[in-house]
Amino acid sequence: MKILTTDGKARRGEFTTVHGTVQTPAFQNVATAAAIKGGLSAQDLKENDCQIMLSNTYHLHLRPGDEIIKKAGGLHKFTNWDAPILTDSGGFQVFSLAKLRNIKEEGVTFASHIDGRKIFMGPEESMRIQSNLGSTVAMAFDECVKNPAPYEYAKASSERTIRWLQRCKDEIKRLNSLPDTVNKNQLLFGINQGCCFEDIRIENMKIIADMDLDGYAIGGLAVGEPKEEMYRIIGEVEPYMPKDKIRYLMGVGTPGNIITAVRLGVDLFDCVMPSRNARHGHLFTWDGIINLNNAKYIEDFSPIDSRCNCEACKNYSKAYIRHLLKAGEMLGMRLAVIHNLHFYNNLMKHIRFAIEQDRYDEFYNKYVNKLDTRI
Amino acid sequence: MKILTTDGKARRGEFTTVHGTVQTPAFQNVATAAAIKGGLSAQDLKENDCQIMLSNTYHLHLRPGDEIIKKAGGLHKFTNWDAPILTDSGGFQVFSLAKLRNIKEEGVTFASHIDGRKIFMGPEESMRIQSNLGSTVAMAFDECVKNPAPYEYAKASSERTIRWLQRCKDEIKRLNSLPDTVNKNQLLFGINQGCCFEDIRIENMKIIADMDLDGYAIGGLAVGEPKEEMYRIIGEVEPYMPKDKIRYLMGVGTPGNIITAVRLGVDLFDCVMPSRNARHGHLFTWDGIINLNNAKYIEDFSPIDSRCNCEACKNYSKAYIRHLLKAGEMLGMRLAVIHNLHFYNNLMKHIRFAIEQDRYDEFYNKYVNKLDTRI
Repeated sequence: MKILTTDGKARRGEFTTVHGTVQTPAFQNVATAAAIKGGLSAQDLKENDCQIMLSNTYHLHLRPGDEIIKKAGGLHKFTNWDAPILTDSGGFQVFSLAKLRNIKEEGVTFASHIDGRKIFMGPEESMRIQSNLGSTVAMAFDECVKNPAPYEYAKASSERTIRWLQRCKDEIKRLNSLPDTVNKNQLLFGINQGCCFEDIRIENMKIIADMDLDGYAIGGLAVGEPKEEMYRIIGEVEPYMPKDKIRYLMGVGTPGNIITAVRLGVDLFDCVMPSRNARHGHLFTWDGIINLNNAKYIEDFSPIDSRCNCEACKNYSKAYIRHLLKAGEMLGMRLAVIHNLHFYNNLMKHIRFAIEQDRYDEFYNKYVNKLDTRI
Repeated sequence: MKILTTDGKARRGEFTTVHGTVQTPAFQNVATAAAIKGGLSAQDLKENDCQIMLSNTYHLHLRPGDEIIKKAGGLHKFTNWDAPILTDSGGFQVFSLAKLRNIKEEGVTFASHIDGRKIFMGPEESMRIQSNLGSTVAMAFDECVKNPAPYEYAKASSERTIRWLQRCKDEIKRLNSLPDTVNKNQLLFGINQGCCFEDIRIENMKIIADMDLDGYAIGGLAVGEPKEEMYRIIGEVEPYMPKDKIRYLMGVGTPGNIITAVRLGVDLFDCVMPSRNARHGHLFTWDGIINLNNAKYIEDFSPIDSRCNCEACKNYSKAYIRHLLKAGEMLGMRLAVIHNLHFYNNLMKHIRFAIEQDRYDEFYNKYVNKLDTRI
């Protein structure tokens, strides 16, 4: 990770990988099952200035199976996306989607949410699956503890997650050296946990910072706690994060969340919000969020945002996209997702520019609340 | 309609409209609710050599409402598609989708399939709606009689449909001359009916041929009768169809149906088959139809058809598209529809070329059965 410039704690950097360089701060576009919701292809991502794709290990392990993707030559060949891909560890889905979990020191036994079959996943299994997927970045296998959690449980879980991290590090090193590995340069990010307890979070971060990983994530946030709580925790652990490594806030968030977290020193984000909101007709603009279901848009033949350069705004009106969503036409969903993803990637571009110009405070004050407001 | 050349009864022509010239034989790509199923945009149609789009009057009248589309500047502006658009009359949907129909000389009263509200549609209403939509071609309002029908009913219905056609012709003339009409050059096609009765069909065709319409359709076929029955009827009425007018076989059909009907003298087609089959993983190739659900494609990393130049075949494998369809990812549907539509439009190109080369019989013999075969 190369830091080009800073403005306060906000960092303007470059994260170089074998699949290309990511300009940070950056947003990862979520392709859970190896495709973006709304029918977007890799080509569509390129056209909307997406730099990095995130896919879910849990989903791809269950369907089509990581062995199939390995045979395809890895996720890049399978999806025809040649830029960086980050895969999560599967941990979050095991703890949120799967049923009948049983956590032990070795790992977790759980039942597939698709067909109920029993699956065991520990640090080594997660690394093997991600190695089969051949992603640019693998995430360490962690337990994402449900908030609020008792202090003693949070502490014990954080310590186990650190032991799991060491096993991940050992296993990825082994896998990267095997002759038939898809991506021999696969990177590993560690994940800071510790619920909302300052001392556990800081102790955890200090230990994993010493493990010389390729990047550091803050996990277990944006799971229902007030945003002030999230900002407090970022502020508490940030001083202990290595300055020369990329910093990833997992699963965050609204434009306002991202603008704030960048100001606290975060470089990388991911969130399903652009596509989930699009599906419900909630579209991001530089004036705030519009709800296309509102009757006032029935005869509004202007684009979603006349300043926007996306395929939806260049070619179609609010009235048309509203009609398509109401009629259940996939094109409505596709255009809405294209717009929202374009907005997020364009937001990151503006964030990078503001840092370069040493005007990030001004940018923050202008947009932190405005972009999350319903208009 | 300009006939460039013929090979037997097969015609290679050009159909010129205010929205551009269609090279015939041609396939109309079905955009029921002003969008192609599978999330395809007007731009996607252009990229897949689509020449003409078909939209449904019944659906658009109910949602978003033809008055809204008129305010948008017509269907072309609403959808951002600048090439020809044909709208059907609404008749077929009134007789197949709507409930509680009551047919009188004036027209039909029916209940909307969306919200049950009572609607009246007769020849004048259908023309007014299509005029609001501003399509390139309006279809006459007809009764599509359910087969098998008693002879007397078929005869009476055919005669009423002719009286309705005259009312359509009078009304479109009036509408085209109004100052605020979207498309003052809107064309009108008449529709031949008569169920499976040769004498009714021929009598009907003779009368409507004398009415000097812009094109002639054969309706009421491909609704469950054996294909030999359909071919017989086309053969019976074709001699009475004007040679200098475009001929449209409504709702047809499989590649084999189209290849045969062209040989019988038909110029224009439409069918939901490319998108409906795509949704079920049934994909057209020059060797026949493949079923992507078949387990043998799980690890098949080759394109659907290596000779195909569509976005799906250029960029993705069978295994990937199969996975997407299984995972319910919209991109799977989108890629499958793109492929099938591309196949249909490409098929028409090959048909035109074979006629130009005076080798249509050879083309017919090679492909008429092969393309409809499951492989």
